[in-house]
Amino acid sequence: MEEYIVSVYVDNHFGTLARVAGMFRRRGFNIDTLTVGETEDPAFSRITISFRGDEKFKKQLVAQLEKIEDVKNVKVLERESSVTRELVLIKIRNDPATRPEVMNICEIFRARVVDYSAETLTIEITGKDKLSAFIDLMRRYGIIEICRTGIVALERGSANIKEQ
Amino acid sequence: MEEYIVSVYVDNHFGTLARVAGMFRRRGFNIDTLTVGETEDPAFSRITISFRGDEKFKKQLVAQLEKIEDVKNVKVLERESSVTRELVLIKIRNDPATRPEVMNICEIFRARVVDYSAETLTIEITGKDKLSAFIDLMRRYGIIEICRTGIVALERGSANIKEQ
Repeated sequence: MEEYIVSVYVDNHFGTLARVAGMFRRRGFNIDTLTVGETEDPAFSRITISFRGDEKFKKQLVAQLEKIEDVKNVKVLERESSVTRELVLIKIRNDPATRPEVMNICEIFRARVVDYSAETLTIEITGKDKLSAFIDLMRRYGIIEICRTGIVALERGSANIKEQ
Repeated sequence: MEEYIVSVYVDNHFGTLARVAGMFRRRGFNIDTLTVGETEDPAFSRITISFRGDEKFKKQLVAQLEKIEDVKNVKVLERESSVTRELVLIKIRNDPATRPEVMNICEIFRARVVDYSAETLTIEITGKDKLSAFIDLMRRYGIIEICRTGIVALERGSANIKEQ
């Protein structure tokens, strides 16, 4: 099982999102994350999809995406030639006994405390492979809630999603 | 026009995403961003939606979301009592003449260069209100492509999406 990231350059924002998400549901494609955001040109959006599967699954998914109305371009981003990031907000219990430990872990992982209350700490972290390790470490302090953006990615160098 | 953020706690990942996105398309709800990600319990996902509108529009949107199968809870997050973040990757031209200026702006905005090639710089920035200012500044250096996660948010303090 390889991990793949596919970038989809699309015309319209939420109509297209509905079509893409509907296609996944109908075909039973099992994907890990999906993000959608405006590009530098507000007429176009970019959908980033991450999933695990084999070469055949990847080809099917790309072929189905290319058929969707308003999809302008689909590009598979190779892991070794892409910058991949996700942002996670995580709220944990603020216990004076464990707080110094939590602060140390945040420093090591370059995470930032973005909210502090008597009962809770909210932490922001960005990255890729380190995120699951960080979340697992936080479980012992009592996770109250998590909000993840899903993965975004750009090819390294001068290549871009608008070129065929 | 107020800016609203709604958190939706849901059962199933992409079937539910298809239902939510389909509802927006059918009803013509105009939303700004949507993110979806796993929570600390892999059986549940969390969808974050940001949009602008009036009180009436907000109520309609929440009422429609609550009707969707697999939606466990819907919460409107108030701006002043929430932590709100987005991650943006932005690739610009790497011009020796303007590079020091770009690096200065990155430092001021706490943005990080995450890829460097002879022709391009790829920059990671997280935040909320500063993002559009940063993107606008980057336009003069030649934006090649942008990938945005959309907004994620958590309530400040100990409240969480699982409570009614």
